[in-house]
Amino acid sequence: MTSSKAKTGITPTRKENYPDWYLEVIRAADLAEHSPVKGCMIIKPWGYAIWERIQFLFDRAFKETGHQNAYFPLFIPLSFLEKEASHVEGFAKECAVVTHHRLETNKEGKLVPAAPLEEPLIVRPTSETMVGECFAKWIHSYRDLPLLLNQWANIVRWEMRTRLFLRTTEFLWQEGHTAHATKEEAMEETLKMLDVYANIGKEYLAIPFIKGEKTESERFPGAVSTFTIEGMMQDRKALQGGTSHFLGQNFSKASNIKFRDKDGEEKFCWTTSWGSTTRLVGALVMVHSDDDGLVLPPQITPVHVVIIPILHQEETKEKVLQFCRKLQGELKERQFADRPLSVQIDERELRGGEKSWSWIKKGVPIRLEIGPRDIAQGEVTYYRRDFPVKEGKAMKKSEFIQKVDAILEEIQTNLYEKALSFREENIREIDTKEEFYSFFTPQNKENPEIHGGFALAHWCEDPKIEEKVKEDLGVTIRCIPFDTTEEKGKCVISGRPSRRKVIFAKAY
Amino acid sequence: MTSSKAKTGITPTRKENYPDWYLEVIRAADLAEHSPVKGCMIIKPWGYAIWERIQFLFDRAFKETGHQNAYFPLFIPLSFLEKEASHVEGFAKECAVVTHHRLETNKEGKLVPAAPLEEPLIVRPTSETMVGECFAKWIHSYRDLPLLLNQWANIVRWEMRTRLFLRTTEFLWQEGHTAHATKEEAMEETLKMLDVYANIGKEYLAIPFIKGEKTESERFPGAVSTFTIEGMMQDRKALQGGTSHFLGQNFSKASNIKFRDKDGEEKFCWTTSWGSTTRLVGALVMVHSDDDGLVLPPQITPVHVVIIPILHQEETKEKVLQFCRKLQGELKERQFADRPLSVQIDERELRGGEKSWSWIKKGVPIRLEIGPRDIAQGEVTYYRRDFPVKEGKAMKKSEFIQKVDAILEEIQTNLYEKALSFREENIREIDTKEEFYSFFTPQNKENPEIHGGFALAHWCEDPKIEEKVKEDLGVTIRCIPFDTTEEKGKCVISGRPSRRKVIFAKAY
Repeated sequence: MTSSKAKTGITPTRKENYPDWYLEVIRAADLAEHSPVKGCMIIKPWGYAIWERIQFLFDRAFKETGHQNAYFPLFIPLSFLEKEASHVEGFAKECAVVTHHRLETNKEGKLVPAAPLEEPLIVRPTSETMVGECFAKWIHSYRDLPLLLNQWANIVRWEMRTRLFLRTTEFLWQEGHTAHATKEEAMEETLKMLDVYANIGKEYLAIPFIKGEKTESERFPGAVSTFTIEGMMQDRKALQGGTSHFLGQNFSKASNIKFRDKDGEEKFCWTTSWGSTTRLVGALVMVHSDDDGLVLPPQITPVHVVIIPILHQEETKEKVLQFCRKLQGELKERQFADRPLSVQIDERELRGGEKSWSWIKKGVPIRLEIGPRDIAQGEVTYYRRDFPVKEGKAMKKSEFIQKVDAILEEIQTNLYEKALSFREENIREIDTKEEFYSFFTPQNKENPEIHGGFALAHWCEDPKIEEKVKEDLGVTIRCIPFDTTEEKGKCVISGRPSRRKVIFAKAY
Repeated sequence: MTSSKAKTGITPTRKENYPDWYLEVIRAADLAEHSPVKGCMIIKPWGYAIWERIQFLFDRAFKETGHQNAYFPLFIPLSFLEKEASHVEGFAKECAVVTHHRLETNKEGKLVPAAPLEEPLIVRPTSETMVGECFAKWIHSYRDLPLLLNQWANIVRWEMRTRLFLRTTEFLWQEGHTAHATKEEAMEETLKMLDVYANIGKEYLAIPFIKGEKTESERFPGAVSTFTIEGMMQDRKALQGGTSHFLGQNFSKASNIKFRDKDGEEKFCWTTSWGSTTRLVGALVMVHSDDDGLVLPPQITPVHVVIIPILHQEETKEKVLQFCRKLQGELKERQFADRPLSVQIDERELRGGEKSWSWIKKGVPIRLEIGPRDIAQGEVTYYRRDFPVKEGKAMKKSEFIQKVDAILEEIQTNLYEKALSFREENIREIDTKEEFYSFFTPQNKENPEIHGGFALAHWCEDPKIEEKVKEDLGVTIRCIPFDTTEEKGKCVISGRPSRRKVIFAKAY
């Protein structure tokens, strides 16, 4: 879809149909698509480059905090999963099961599974049980602690209804697994990694996440406490950006992870695990993009600046191209934050409008359109992706080269501020049940996705209340946020005494 | 095992029992271990850090040659595999098959697979068929070509007999997949990527690989031509370090990958694929390590220099530690090739000998042992891992800091030269069947692994001869090397006319 046919790059717009808008942004930016295998996605180069940047940032932060990478098997024996009771209950329904290890052609000439396995294998839905088995073998003494590992891997959790990046049968993630001598150290680690997630969210993804603890019913199967970062998407729903689990001694008791302490006593370790996934690409899409397509924060984008040479006049074509190539070289010498600028020229044989729109939809922060007139005046015309698409600004070339990092910094800050304001506008403190129900009831029947947003309200800590709200409204408690203090009140639903406010929201 | 108990760090030595020596080097360096799941391995931090470095080097080279990363599903429908006849034949016996997507507890309280899938899914043994399906959808015009993708992924090929890094049911790899408009371009790509493998092998892994083409019987299932790089291990066996396949139009016809050419005609694409795996870590171990353990090339090692403070005297302890920490800071300012030096201090509470041996066995290129006497003289004592373990050399601290990169460069070159000489010494041109059979028959009955090495000999191009040699001696044709020219002769086995010499060897 080009500018001449419609006012926006993306149809439908966010207001018209948010879920379809989301899929269309992904399609138009060429981030990913559904695969021929039900529930799995194919991550295309532009989407994968975003994930690679996220990987790089997390990986660096994990190493800076003393973690090392390792790799554990894709397959987990069925019997391992059974060791931790709530763990198996939480994952049994989502497991892909390998039952055979060979194919053969049957009498009808059809290829069929042969050679059944003695014990079926699960394709890992997470690796606590496998890692636990290894930790038990590797850890002997307090000298072996803390053991701080991370794994980059693919994960399978069978899904009936899938949505690109947000919910797919196979996804990519990192999973941290650590073991400690004391409860305090394990808790410190759990919260430290939550901070790593939240900080990268803020500084790089430009997403203001809310840190907090999950309620019992939303806890990771087998954890003592689960902590989360929750972001608000533009349809005001919540998206969990990463979770960090304090596992207490549950898994160390299930897998017998013991160590001999300084005092000579044998003790069970305290363990943690923490993960973040390719969902974060979905979060990026939903927090920053607009009705013209993807918008990428400069800290994340695979390309900072795209140069579009305007080539309609045959006689100036070569001159324009030369100017653009030289400019590309000069810009590549510049740096934004920790990376040299990535600068691309689009020399494809396409009409100018089509070219510009393709980069707008891909979310590149700065677009330069350069024609003979700009060259004559020693100028460049630049367009910021966070401004309206036609709002170009001319600037002396040398000045632009000098200021490009400052402009990128402005875009980065602007995106974060916008997302923060949006969230602030759509969080409401609610004290009555009536207001609560009305807040979560879509006002506009044509757009049933749009509702109030996040409600900050008192809760009596009864899981039945959570269940009721979930049934009635599709709303869950996203977290008990860290940044509220204890404050006596009455549960917004039951009217019973409450110790503090929690965040209720619809969620992905 | 420490130096006081044995003359060598590793028992058995290479001569005593090469296969056990290999496993012991891996264990002593803490690279990897067998997992509780049969056939799968756990890559431990030191092994994974080596793989990460290999990944980084390949990934950079792939991007420099215009490739982009993407991600395709882990699961492949059974029907996809059937599209290319020789492909399914090649992989059917090794496929792990997912048949169910849920677990449930049966009447006996046992967890069992539930919810059978309509069509079983294969865990990818390679992704040509899945990528082919996508290419068919993505490619329309000559403008979409060449399409140059790479994927980093885990792969499953069921193995009955496994060996860490060399042959495991699950392994990690990269697989490149490209589509081109012409046969020439596809062939150029195939050979270009073979060069990328060989160059990284030479410059970084310090392994002199022989480039060549596979014979028909050793070809990738579905390929028109398969090219390989073959290295010689210290037991004189060959190890394939990477393969690059010219797929012709086999997969494009199987998956219907067509494009409209400049001339308006619809044509089938020409495709390639190429891969290298975690086996390369096994190759590194087997090419460079010695009877004291792992030896890592400076271009690959996770740690360039380890500093071991000698702390037996309580009164000088703090002074020694301070000196070492300052030295660490100064060394970290230095660079080797494209990386700042990675320098570690070992402050563990262990005896000095134990500490030194642990780093010798881990293969760190330079070890510094620093005590009060060194400090008094402003010196450091350094040990090169490619020299005998006790051959330390004292040097003024400032001089060492200045020369450290040159020393690392020397080690890198020395390792390559050693590996090259070893290979040259153990390749023989053989013209008679008698010599051929004797060359491949172990001379020393106590060590049945050691035989002659690589034989460069004439072959009549008859697959039956390959079969016979394989049956009689366990020897295969590793490749038709690029660096020999056509030369008329007689087949070393059949005596029939031959056009050129090929490389025969036992192989991993």
